[in-house]
Amino acid sequence: MDFWPRFNQQFLRYTDLGISLDVSKMGFPEGYLKSKAADCQRAADYMRELEAGEEKNVDEGRMVGHYWLRDVSRAPERDAGGQPVRSYIDDCREAIASFAEEIHGEGKFTHVLLIGIGGSALGPQLVADALGQPDDKMRVAFLDNTDPDGFERVLGQLPLASTLTLVISKSGGTKETANGMKTAQAAYAAQGLSFAGHAVAVTGVDSALDRVARGEEGDDEGRAWLRRFAMTNWVGGRTSVTSVVGLLPMALQGLDFRAFLDGAKAMDARTRGADPAENAAMMMALMWHHAGGGTGKRDMVILPYKDRLALMAKYLQQLIMESLGKARDLDGTAVEQGIAVYGNKGSTDQHAYVQQLRDGVDNFFATFIEVRENFGNGRRGESESGDYLQGFLRGTRRALADKGRPSMTLSLARIDAYTLGALIALYERAVGIYAVLVNINAYDQPGVEAGKKAAEAFICFLHQCRKRLEDASGEKVRAVDVHAGIEDYVSAKGDSQSPTIEDVYHALVHMAHNDAGVIQEWGSFPEEDTFAYQG
Amino acid sequence: MDFWPRFNQQFLRYTDLGISLDVSKMGFPEGYLKSKAADCQRAADYMRELEAGEEKNVDEGRMVGHYWLRDVSRAPERDAGGQPVRSYIDDCREAIASFAEEIHGEGKFTHVLLIGIGGSALGPQLVADALGQPDDKMRVAFLDNTDPDGFERVLGQLPLASTLTLVISKSGGTKETANGMKTAQAAYAAQGLSFAGHAVAVTGVDSALDRVARGEEGDDEGRAWLRRFAMTNWVGGRTSVTSVVGLLPMALQGLDFRAFLDGAKAMDARTRGADPAENAAMMMALMWHHAGGGTGKRDMVILPYKDRLALMAKYLQQLIMESLGKARDLDGTAVEQGIAVYGNKGSTDQHAYVQQLRDGVDNFFATFIEVRENFGNGRRGESESGDYLQGFLRGTRRALADKGRPSMTLSLARIDAYTLGALIALYERAVGIYAVLVNINAYDQPGVEAGKKAAEAFICFLHQCRKRLEDASGEKVRAVDVHAGIEDYVSAKGDSQSPTIEDVYHALVHMAHNDAGVIQEWGSFPEEDTFAYQG
Repeated sequence: MDFWPRFNQQFLRYTDLGISLDVSKMGFPEGYLKSKAADCQRAADYMRELEAGEEKNVDEGRMVGHYWLRDVSRAPERDAGGQPVRSYIDDCREAIASFAEEIHGEGKFTHVLLIGIGGSALGPQLVADALGQPDDKMRVAFLDNTDPDGFERVLGQLPLASTLTLVISKSGGTKETANGMKTAQAAYAAQGLSFAGHAVAVTGVDSALDRVARGEEGDDEGRAWLRRFAMTNWVGGRTSVTSVVGLLPMALQGLDFRAFLDGAKAMDARTRGADPAENAAMMMALMWHHAGGGTGKRDMVILPYKDRLALMAKYLQQLIMESLGKARDLDGTAVEQGIAVYGNKGSTDQHAYVQQLRDGVDNFFATFIEVRENFGNGRRGESESGDYLQGFLRGTRRALADKGRPSMTLSLARIDAYTLGALIALYERAVGIYAVLVNINAYDQPGVEAGKKAAEAFICFLHQCRKRLEDASGEKVRAVDVHAGIEDYVSAKGDSQSPTIEDVYHALVHMAHNDAGVIQEWGSFPEEDTFAYQG
Repeated sequence: MDFWPRFNQQFLRYTDLGISLDVSKMGFPEGYLKSKAADCQRAADYMRELEAGEEKNVDEGRMVGHYWLRDVSRAPERDAGGQPVRSYIDDCREAIASFAEEIHGEGKFTHVLLIGIGGSALGPQLVADALGQPDDKMRVAFLDNTDPDGFERVLGQLPLASTLTLVISKSGGTKETANGMKTAQAAYAAQGLSFAGHAVAVTGVDSALDRVARGEEGDDEGRAWLRRFAMTNWVGGRTSVTSVVGLLPMALQGLDFRAFLDGAKAMDARTRGADPAENAAMMMALMWHHAGGGTGKRDMVILPYKDRLALMAKYLQQLIMESLGKARDLDGTAVEQGIAVYGNKGSTDQHAYVQQLRDGVDNFFATFIEVRENFGNGRRGESESGDYLQGFLRGTRRALADKGRPSMTLSLARIDAYTLGALIALYERAVGIYAVLVNINAYDQPGVEAGKKAAEAFICFLHQCRKRLEDASGEKVRAVDVHAGIEDYVSAKGDSQSPTIEDVYHALVHMAHNDAGVIQEWGSFPEEDTFAYQG
């Protein structure tokens, strides 16, 4: 069968951006795009209102301003709270550039340690890996969890005296980041180094972290950190890579953050219209909708054939799943929306799970991401390895199509700051548009609170359990005894937070594996296990 | 509601292995396990036959022997081809240990470069990351793709003079590995170093790679490599981490590969019975079956709350999806089986996609992997960060359960070679059992061939296109012209491999981005684009 006419028709390309999108293997029917014209217009209108400053994050009563970061001329003068927007963006860019210049000029710092999680880490991780070069001005490492062993592993490999630490948290209340900061602080102190003298805060004005960084609170009281950068409430974490969150580490690493912004701006300019034949973000959103029936019936498999984009799928997991994975639509109707995203890189994944993609469960659509140039840094050159990389992508795309498994292909001329900015902007816009198509708020994340609260509750009664076990002064107790012993505490809690015997059991097992002197004796079942402080 | 009795009942633990499995939040009905008793018996019988040496990889006519690697006493004397099995396993272990000792003793080599893909890389990558310590005897790096830029990035960071390179490929015909080898060879040569003097082959006896390593073929003709290790055809790539593929890099890194084998052996011993109440692999396989209705209706989300297990989900993607993602069952019936697997690590992923897991599409079940000890290397100690890590796991598990989203929890006392071996053996066995439950061959991978063949075809006609463009000596040609020009080549190919105009177009665009002097001029559509060598 000759797909050439169809390919010509369904190959959308931005030659000046070096990006094209081929949807000819998505298997949508003739007339499909036309049938969606009204939806497309609605989505384009919605996005125009959003960019004009309407409070589209309705649940949190916030504007959605990440597009302004790339084109200040389209931003409102002031945000909903009356704070300046345009001058904030301009000043922030200047401050980033001059701070990076200053740090590079001093020559004191060789490494950056970024402490952040979720939106405060995933973008910077993607950018650092995709664009990093051996001659970067600084190397970037990350603390992005609350794993004490993981903290040690990273900190142990850093020359702290010459490491500049960025702590990134909008509220300053994110526990993983706070724990990472405390651990880093202790590591600096253990080497006789002042943390404040090596630290930069990226946070909301007057947040808990901001106060610490001003030297008003915390371990370094009285000593202000090297610098503070302000985050705003109109940029969400998962779209913050073109804000100070992404730009500051980029600038420190020595990457061209202005080119990154220019790429995003150029893509934004191409993706505002209602016609999917000219708007790649609209086309992608429609394809996602068509593939999954608008209810996420198919997973999105991301297959970039380039080592430098190995973190792309992880980045998109957050951008797409946290934005689209919602329980209710904008009318309050229960919907259970979302699209599951996974993938690593090609052709490597062909040796992992492409077997299932071709032969197995038919529950996905693939997105191939192709990078045309074999080498980075604009160097041109033939490469047999590169010929094969291209061959494997084309071969796998064909093998999936032969089995009727849908795929689309994004082609990038190369990986550089400009193209990466454009690629990210393309996905941001596609997510925004898809959310309009399925009528949800893409900008809040109400579902993550429950887990955090339950975790806080766990920490509280863990302390209760520690105390109760101490009170038992060496006597062996069971989970059920300790649970009874903290009965007042339990009954004071609301139903949803009240610790169960099982929770208490796990708290005790946790202690038995970590707290000095706590011994667990195993029974046949958990209810028979005993715990005690050994004298 | 009080889940304590249910938890007690549904908490399967191997206290001596430090591993337990909690399925109390999987939401299976009372009586479910009993109703599956006959299936469980069938699965246990099948696995017993498999371990006894029956050719269970029926499509490839091979035995499935990875369990023998951990317990030589259960292996047959000889394989189907009459080659010794027991002495192979014993000799191989000894050879690995003595080779590592020799290399460490010499002190010449500080780094290992492993060149392999799929099963020849994913296990070693998981192990190196999970068990690596700052004082390891050698550091391990990987080439696991055919990306020329990716190759340069890794090779540029290695001190080649003191880098020992392992090339791992059973057939020696895997193109990514062959390309990685050629690129490494060129990098050694560029520094005036003999590749053969730094290289070790892990491959099938008399494979193409084996002949190169014997010095009979290839660039280093006449010079044998440092060492060759034999792979056998009764160990598949995705279950090869307890074979020489996993053990050799472990030993070189200075890790305790015998403890790793012991852990796997101990788990094997616990997971042979038919009773899911005592066999954690049987229980897991039943839970997968229950969650996905035996047709993979739910994705498997892997959430290890430990940085060191961040590659676990990627490892399991191969093990599970390549094993289970099959088009036909053992009776030849079309089934489209499999289970999609994804995940990274907790609590980090809570800030990425747990929003969707809790609120969004109800198309998954989660597996929490918990590591009880805060620190590695057997060091005991309280840690607020560790308390939170435990709290986040418990909190998220509860938050999912509150919404009726199924999850199971695997608890490990710690991450060490023994426990990691046991964990991998647990999953290997669960995959084997699940395959029996759904009546498929878990040990072949017929679906990956199509993509490889299509890729080979692409490379062949890419050469044709290069030639045709040269023949045009500077004249501008379109894809359709070049396609017509290679008509003889096209018609000589079978239908499924015959290059389309679109294939030719992409070959030409690939050349325009990489080959010296090839220029693309853009028309309105791909069919109008012209390509030419610039004089």
